[in-house]
Amino acid sequence: MYELGIVKRNIIRADRAAVDRLAAFGVATVHEAMGRVGLLAPYMRPIYPGAQVSGTAVTVLLQPGDNWMLHVAAEQIQPGDIVVAACTADNTDGFFGDLLATSFRARGALGLVIDAGVRDVKVLTEMRFPVWSKAISAKGTVKATLGSVNIPLVCAGALVHAGDAIVADDDGVVVVPAAMVGKVADAAAAREANEGDKRAKLADGVLGLDMYKMREPLVKAGLRYVD
Amino acid sequence: MYELGIVKRNIIRADRAAVDRLAAFGVATVHEAMGRVGLLAPYMRPIYPGAQVSGTAVTVLLQPGDNWMLHVAAEQIQPGDIVVAACTADNTDGFFGDLLATSFRARGALGLVIDAGVRDVKVLTEMRFPVWSKAISAKGTVKATLGSVNIPLVCAGALVHAGDAIVADDDGVVVVPAAMVGKVADAAAAREANEGDKRAKLADGVLGLDMYKMREPLVKAGLRYVD
Amino acid sequence: MYELGIVKRNIIRADRAAVDRLAAFGVATVHEAMGRVGLLAPYMRPIYPGAQVSGTAVTVLLQPGDNWMLHVAAEQIQPGDIVVAACTADNTDGFFGDLLATSFRARGALGLVIDAGVRDVKVLTEMRFPVWSKAISAKGTVKATLGSVNIPLVCAGALVHAGDAIVADDDGVVVVPAAMVGKVADAAAAREANEGDKRAKLADGVLGLDMYKMREPLVKAGLRYVD
Amino acid sequence: MYELGIVKRNIIRADRAAVDRLAAFGVATVHEAMGRVGLLAPYMRPIYPGAQVSGTAVTVLLQPGDNWMLHVAAEQIQPGDIVVAACTADNTDGFFGDLLATSFRARGALGLVIDAGVRDVKVLTEMRFPVWSKAISAKGTVKATLGSVNIPLVCAGALVHAGDAIVADDDGVVVVPAAMVGKVADAAAAREANEGDKRAKLADGVLGLDMYKMREPLVKAGLRYVD
Amino acid sequence: MYELGIVKRNIIRADRAAVDRLAAFGVATVHEAMGRVGLLAPYMRPIYPGAQVSGTAVTVLLQPGDNWMLHVAAEQIQPGDIVVAACTADNTDGFFGDLLATSFRARGALGLVIDAGVRDVKVLTEMRFPVWSKAISAKGTVKATLGSVNIPLVCAGALVHAGDAIVADDDGVVVVPAAMVGKVADAAAAREANEGDKRAKLADGVLGLDMYKMREPLVKAGLRYVD
Amino acid sequence: MYELGIVKRNIIRADRAAVDRLAAFGVATVHEAMGRVGLLAPYMRPIYPGAQVSGTAVTVLLQPGDNWMLHVAAEQIQPGDIVVAACTADNTDGFFGDLLATSFRARGALGLVIDAGVRDVKVLTEMRFPVWSKAISAKGTVKATLGSVNIPLVCAGALVHAGDAIVADDDGVVVVPAAMVGKVADAAAAREANEGDKRAKLADGVLGLDMYKMREPLVKAGLRYVD
Repeated sequence: MYELGIVKRNIIRADRAAVDRLAAFGVATVHEAMGRVGLLAPYMRPIYPGAQVSGTAVTVLLQPGDNWMLHVAAEQIQPGDIVVAACTADNTDGFFGDLLATSFRARGALGLVIDAGVRDVKVLTEMRFPVWSKAISAKGTVKATLGSVNIPLVCAGALVHAGDAIVADDDGVVVVPAAMVGKVADAAAAREANEGDKRAKLADGVLGLDMYKMREPLVKAGLRYVD
Repeated sequence: MYELGIVKRNIIRADRAAVDRLAAFGVATVHEAMGRVGLLAPYMRPIYPGAQVSGTAVTVLLQPGDNWMLHVAAEQIQPGDIVVAACTADNTDGFFGDLLATSFRARGALGLVIDAGVRDVKVLTEMRFPVWSKAISAKGTVKATLGSVNIPLVCAGALVHAGDAIVADDDGVVVVPAAMVGKVADAAAAREANEGDKRAKLADGVLGLDMYKMREPLVKAGLRYVD
Repeated sequence: MYELGIVKRNIIRADRAAVDRLAAFGVATVHEAMGRVGLLAPYMRPIYPGAQVSGTAVTVLLQPGDNWMLHVAAEQIQPGDIVVAACTADNTDGFFGDLLATSFRARGALGLVIDAGVRDVKVLTEMRFPVWSKAISAKGTVKATLGSVNIPLVCAGALVHAGDAIVADDDGVVVVPAAMVGKVADAAAAREANEGDKRAKLADGVLGLDMYKMREPLVKAGLRYVD
Repeated sequence: MYELGIVKRNIIRADRAAVDRLAAFGVATVHEAMGRVGLLAPYMRPIYPGAQVSGTAVTVLLQPGDNWMLHVAAEQIQPGDIVVAACTADNTDGFFGDLLATSFRARGALGLVIDAGVRDVKVLTEMRFPVWSKAISAKGTVKATLGSVNIPLVCAGALVHAGDAIVADDDGVVVVPAAMVGKVADAAAAREANEGDKRAKLADGVLGLDMYKMREPLVKAGLRYVD
Repeated sequence: MYELGIVKRNIIRADRAAVDRLAAFGVATVHEAMGRVGLLAPYMRPIYPGAQVSGTAVTVLLQPGDNWMLHVAAEQIQPGDIVVAACTADNTDGFFGDLLATSFRARGALGLVIDAGVRDVKVLTEMRFPVWSKAISAKGTVKATLGSVNIPLVCAGALVHAGDAIVADDDGVVVVPAAMVGKVADAAAAREANEGDKRAKLADGVLGLDMYKMREPLVKAGLRYVD
Repeated sequence: MYELGIVKRNIIRADRAAVDRLAAFGVATVHEAMGRVGLLAPYMRPIYPGAQVSGTAVTVLLQPGDNWMLHVAAEQIQPGDIVVAACTADNTDGFFGDLLATSFRARGALGLVIDAGVRDVKVLTEMRFPVWSKAISAKGTVKATLGSVNIPLVCAGALVHAGDAIVADDDGVVVVPAAMVGKVADAAAAREANEGDKRAKLADGVLGLDMYKMREPLVKAGLRYVD
């Protein structure tokens, strides 16, 4: 259960080199490499297309309509982090805008993942500060009630620990537990290694039916071709 | 009701020349030309703006979380087809990505309409392979259970038969029964013929009230102007 | 309660100069300057990114599936107006397209805010005619039943009077009562005056915790730092 | 726009005798008698079936996650009132439970209409204190920020002034402006007067087609019977 | 695609005796007996719990906000029918109330399935006239535009032909093609035949793991028990 | 991240006596006693009103459209348990019906909390086997893919460990970490101790404004009474 009013300062971040490798694979490949787990809910959408990042999570638990803890979190950011924010209740207010983005970037943050709303999206887009959120809303917030920073939390249905690796792109967001990052990066690399070959064959008109040897299992499963 | 485990190979595609004419009219005009029917639900959205296509439907019935039948469907694609996929249960998984798009394109497909999720949208956008879907999700799928190919199915609330014409653009997706394509293309052309003239008048400040002779029916309906 | 079949011709528009000042501040700042009220629901989204406008409201009450009153409203538009349309029932049909946009623009309208659907979004985007709507749908409408023009109405949860100022951008839409526009513009200007300074400090790495003197109130509220 | 921090004490309540007549007609009939306007959005549902009430509105504007103003409103309740609560942002927290219901009832309130969440619904059901809400949630609220009481507000899409008549039943909620209550009650009574006769005829197998003389207009509209 | 303005009078209803057998099996069993197809979307909910019916479909295509065709459909009802209504656009208005229910019942209808809204639910509940709908709304409708009766249509995602069997209960609604009713009834009966025995075993504490012999396939699939 | 294919047999259940005390307090009080945390999302609704239970969690991670692991979980149930099921993807299929309920009850389960769909709700209601779910659907499931039992999981937005206490009633569902159950039960008891006194005062017409001494803080916050 969530403990409120806590800022955990010393967190163990996933291995930087391994985390950095993840961005290039993208969310779909990383999620496959983990065994099809770790995705945040698909309602988490980027505010502009094309961003693709990986980083280590600084987690923030917010109270509805209150962005105080994002300021507290700013101090905990280290270069290469991605801030991951959840809220104790369903809320679409605009917790984050261009001033906080300026501050987060100055601290080295690579982006924000927030299970709530965001605003100033035009400026954030011009700044190329990527945000994945469940809503865009101009609704302002207050600074009155404590949440927590760097506690484990549930963001858009996924459990995130401070220091876990986060990968985000146009397909969504995935979390990789800190201890698994190296292994997952290797699995993702292996997965991608023969993708170029597959793509070339498919582009030449080879069917997946043949390339993946699916014809026999399909017949076995009972598939019938009719005219 | 859906028959499962069937691939219908010989389908009667709508007249190619007539189908090709439809793309230029766009979805709104084609739907009007049909008498305001045939639209898929408005939650079907393009993964990038600006695509506008028409083609003949290859239909695919999928099982939730399982994209096996998309591989089976690939073999049935002919140049000028658009694949139309529905799922036996509500599902937002990412059934389709850049490898399948490469294969579909190699077979001549012009796009995909899927009442489920899609992934690799950044690459699909770079490839300019247009997809209309109800969700974007990195969630992978398995290849384990049979659906069917080229059976009549309900996609996003609309009944689609294999061979029907599909038109899709930023406004959504419309299906035109194969037998009606020529007639609908003519009606759409007639509808557009005087649009340029209307547009010019409206741009000059002529009111629709006058151009469409609405003033009298409005008074008849009881409209009152007050100060 | 809504009176149907009424067109109010003489409306008192908010002060033009003050309204014109609002666009540059954007929705988030204007909403803050008003005390965090006046926003339309966040489901109101622009059809393309980047538009940022302010204008005076011409209000239109529509019947579901019927866009007749938009034609009636066109005649009431004056340069600098933004049309604000609501519907007597929840409806996502495409009430507005490129022909009406041509007419509205010829009358001087700067945009449309509609708690329903819109179509021809590709052409509207090319025209740079901005629309904020709750849906995009090719579904056509009829012209059969009366609504009203320039009566007070509820649009996406906000009360709008004809002549009120409307500000809309990528963050959403806000309504400013006509009588408050000057005061709100001043408050927004004051709010922005020291934003540049704040942004510079944050960009230099100064923390909001220090800039806003939050450390003491946070301790008072019980915040604890742990290792 | 909403003014915050205000409690209006002297409100003009709709005529009690006329308001009392409305409950028996039910929401559908009252809404028809008004010309098909005045309904709150259909997501407003009763917490238990069968309640049917009418009363005069005490309005409450709440802040998200904060039920302070419900306590302020309690003092303004007079016998025969129904409390109508809206929130400045979308929120499903449980703002109201059995203790507040006990207090409201002691003041003479007949029910609550709240565009947010409610809790203790089992006890409220046992108490037969009717509530129409958009959510049921155990989530508690704080008492920290001011809203207002008895200002005009938008609740679930409808504009409500303090003193307006509210009618609520299993079909939803309708608001009748205070000045129109007598007239609406008369119109509703007239509407119901011949319903018994109609019902008897329909029960005897007379068709609406004949009773309402629809056959000719249907043919005129182009209806065709085929075998 | 939908043809508008048509009433098909001579429809072939599924075998009455077989249809009558279906009610007792319930929706879940019938849907399983068909191979897990034929369900309407789960947003279709009964207006009161406990009803369980089967009947033959009279189909009605409605226009949004217009219930004219329900009156037209009444004349086509025969004893044992269930009316199945869809709408050409997403709409939650209250198309059906107690007067129409009185008329439908007088004609022998056993219930209504409507992919839109319904009202007078308190009276309908007292009458025990079962309705499955996607919304409850007091919003009234007009009688102005033609739809069709007894054409094939898509209702809540399922294709329904006039004369098909409809089964509805607290779990939802399923459609059985007229030609399959006898076979499906037999399959459902076979399915239920050994349910009593299974239930008794499970009630005695026998595990499904053993009764269904799942232990081996689970191990094969890789299941590991850990302490 | 979720490990798949695991059944943890030895779990540490929260103290039985303390867990048993929680049911009587109800979800709202328990959630308050924990500091307003621990609630599952409010879309989790009971299939029938009036059930109020507490028990220890047996957790189940399901694959979409596949209820195999519910059979595996049955063997791990001990008297006093409540099964808590989540799914690796958003899914509304009917994973659970009366046969599994018979089996679960035979093992001593007190109920089911499932972030997916359930069926046979009429029989479950007659059996008085309480289920909290996000959907009701007749859609059947297969038994083909492994999930896990008794791993920590996220259910409807809340983190649940096997052995945690679960409390569920008409207001929703709350999870209490096993280690905190005694303390929470004490806090809930303290909270309720003076509720009777408060209720009596409120029933006598004492205002919360006076009972909670809110008048001064309201004035301090700026509340103004106007006529």
